[in-house]
Amino acid sequence: MSDFIEPKILKGFRDFLPAAEIARQNLVEKIENCFRSYGFLPIDTPALEYAEILLGKGGGETEKQIYRFTDNGERDVALRFDLTVPLARFLAAHRAELNFPFKRYHIAKVWRGENTQRGRYREFTQCDFDILGSTSAASDFEILHIMYNTLRAAAGGEVKIHINHRGLFNRFLGRLELLDKSVAILRTVDKLAKIGGEETLQQLTEIIGEEKAVKVLEFIGLSGGFEKTLAAMTAAAGPGPESEHLALIYRYMLDSGIAGSIVLDPSITRGLDYYTGIVFESFLAELPEIGSICSGGRYDNLVGLYSKESIPGVGTSIGLDRLLAALESLGRLQPRQSYALTAIACLAEKHGGAYQALAERLRKEGIACEVFLEEEKLVKQFQAAEKKGIRWLLIPDAEKPLDGPITLRDISKRENREGLTIEELVGILTTPPSPA
Amino acid sequence: MSDFIEPKILKGFRDFLPAAEIARQNLVEKIENCFRSYGFLPIDTPALEYAEILLGKGGGETEKQIYRFTDNGERDVALRFDLTVPLARFLAAHRAELNFPFKRYHIAKVWRGENTQRGRYREFTQCDFDILGSTSAASDFEILHIMYNTLRAAAGGEVKIHINHRGLFNRFLGRLELLDKSVAILRTVDKLAKIGGEETLQQLTEIIGEEKAVKVLEFIGLSGGFEKTLAAMTAAAGPGPESEHLALIYRYMLDSGIAGSIVLDPSITRGLDYYTGIVFESFLAELPEIGSICSGGRYDNLVGLYSKESIPGVGTSIGLDRLLAALESLGRLQPRQSYALTAIACLAEKHGGAYQALAERLRKEGIACEVFLEEEKLVKQFQAAEKKGIRWLLIPDAEKPLDGPITLRDISKRENREGLTIEELVGILTTPPSPA
Repeated sequence: MSDFIEPKILKGFRDFLPAAEIARQNLVEKIENCFRSYGFLPIDTPALEYAEILLGKGGGETEKQIYRFTDNGERDVALRFDLTVPLARFLAAHRAELNFPFKRYHIAKVWRGENTQRGRYREFTQCDFDILGSTSAASDFEILHIMYNTLRAAAGGEVKIHINHRGLFNRFLGRLELLDKSVAILRTVDKLAKIGGEETLQQLTEIIGEEKAVKVLEFIGLSGGFEKTLAAMTAAAGPGPESEHLALIYRYMLDSGIAGSIVLDPSITRGLDYYTGIVFESFLAELPEIGSICSGGRYDNLVGLYSKESIPGVGTSIGLDRLLAALESLGRLQPRQSYALTAIACLAEKHGGAYQALAERLRKEGIACEVFLEEEKLVKQFQAAEKKGIRWLLIPDAEKPLDGPITLRDISKRENREGLTIEELVGILTTPPSPA
Repeated sequence: MSDFIEPKILKGFRDFLPAAEIARQNLVEKIENCFRSYGFLPIDTPALEYAEILLGKGGGETEKQIYRFTDNGERDVALRFDLTVPLARFLAAHRAELNFPFKRYHIAKVWRGENTQRGRYREFTQCDFDILGSTSAASDFEILHIMYNTLRAAAGGEVKIHINHRGLFNRFLGRLELLDKSVAILRTVDKLAKIGGEETLQQLTEIIGEEKAVKVLEFIGLSGGFEKTLAAMTAAAGPGPESEHLALIYRYMLDSGIAGSIVLDPSITRGLDYYTGIVFESFLAELPEIGSICSGGRYDNLVGLYSKESIPGVGTSIGLDRLLAALESLGRLQPRQSYALTAIACLAEKHGGAYQALAERLRKEGIACEVFLEEEKLVKQFQAAEKKGIRWLLIPDAEKPLDGPITLRDISKRENREGLTIEELVGILTTPPSPA
């Protein structure tokens, strides 16, 4: 029997080793740079909140999945399970301190005690961005525009965004006198891609009868280009402001040159109850089978639980883990083992300070530079550099490490260049390396 | 009575509004860039772990402060209260996958149910960095060197690092035949700065008698420059490898030019039991009263709970919240309200797509650019821009927003420049603005 504690982690939780964490951080930086370039502002909220706050709107599913407990002060608390509910609480608490329309992003971890069998994690990162306090078509469109540019920048391929309008769908249901069943119908339609047309028809028939089920299925099957689809939807639902809103979004798509990437798709409904306007999902054109990377929509009553004054909003969330998995399948992760491609060899223990000073000269020029800490045979240091993904190993002069000539070892090519000055080194190391 | 849930947060937890979150992110980026420039690698571990893992070495204090509960799967789990215990577990689990010496950093939140009265938070961010798998003086020194450069870069002023060697202190205690009381003595000495010399003497006298207490107090009071202090310490403790180790670090300090910022201070012991070699604290020269911003030391048996093979290490943690508070006192936070200094006015709702296309041209040049979403009088848009901290408002042509001449409004100077092309705009906006 061992006296040691097994160093295991909880199911559904993960350690990130350096290569995986560098890939994750690179992706977060790309996404964050995109958000910032639109003038979106970061916020942060506590990981732990009063359970009452987080569960206010939650149904049975949320309650089952949430990490909830009583803290040492006898408070009923829980870990956040998304970033939307904390946003609502944040808005209700701080509305007077914010400028509206308020464009915010929030990249943070959330926790759900979900079934881990389908490759789901219990701790994962969401990248939310929303515009609060505007009902304009321009705000809806800006969210679509950011989605398009962020996913393009992050995934490096073509992106398809499918949009619909909940209000237009409801107007259509109103015509069929089905408004009182809209939630059940929306949830059934939301499963179309998963369960197929036949099963959807059958489930709809159980709710609303066959005749109307056929009509609903026809409606959600409309296609053929944005304008034609919108015209057919409007014909089926009757004219109204929702159609004009969509027509304006279409104009924005054309004027900004991204019309080719956005599809009007009446089958997109999103399961969640709180959407009231446009709803959307987005896919990587090269990998549609992994499903929507970024879904969301317009909600007009998000703070309703905490305040009587409503704040309209539109927004979405990028599932970072799904996007990372997609990039891995596409071979686009470029696993990088280190931020430093340069290191300084250790020839003599006594020169440790001089090696740091030498490295510091490179760092001041923007060159990340590691210092090898232990005196070892050079061939061992070459091997260590190779393992660490270091491209350039500097071998300082044995006697005058700071002022003497330096040898530059190209680890991948196994070549030395001797007798270099620090200025020459900086020149070489700031020139993008040719493909090895 | 209201039906609304009060949007309150837990005591000791905080919302970060945009200006505070931008300041926090800027600081994290500076710290992270410094770590990366030394070739340190990022890792991440779960926020939630088995309580047994986290509490293994914990005494009563940790147990009282930790957020611990039973999850839905009847597991005894807890939120991490630092990043050191998860690192030990991580090393024991992944040692075969890592390259040693392993230089890692980890910037993440931790949670402690501490008394919040002294301005302490229950959720706060730690920035840890450690070198594992080397006992060299060079690894000790590299940690000091990073501390020095990171705190200089992050705080913008002079930094003082006080170091000592636990082993040398213990050798001295051995001479006085006090080794069996070393933990109690170290903990008492650690409080010197807080309780003063007289109280320390009294407490030490209770433990080891007056004669030896006076000797200990003399030892920890030694000062007068690194070399002189080291000589006096060595004379009192007897010669040994710890003195040679410190002498080597002193040579490194001289060779790398940071000797003026590091003080050998025999009164620094750090309270924690697991330090075995050098220990250190660091202070901002302009604000010593806020205490140590970054403390740590060498531990030679961190993974001992989880594995029989020990991994030596040296490392430390920057308390981000204390550093932020320090920067605020020093007036160095430069509150910035937005990442975008440029925005595009909205003259007509129908042109929303063209405005995005115009903004996109600027974003492609690296200029963050917001788009105003609602048609409003220009004077209102000027006011909105001012509130948001936007410096430049672009007023596109009313009819040809994408191709027509553009007016550039300098919000702070209240001046317009008319008739600009997009190329001219890019030129102006990529030139650093003169102080307004």
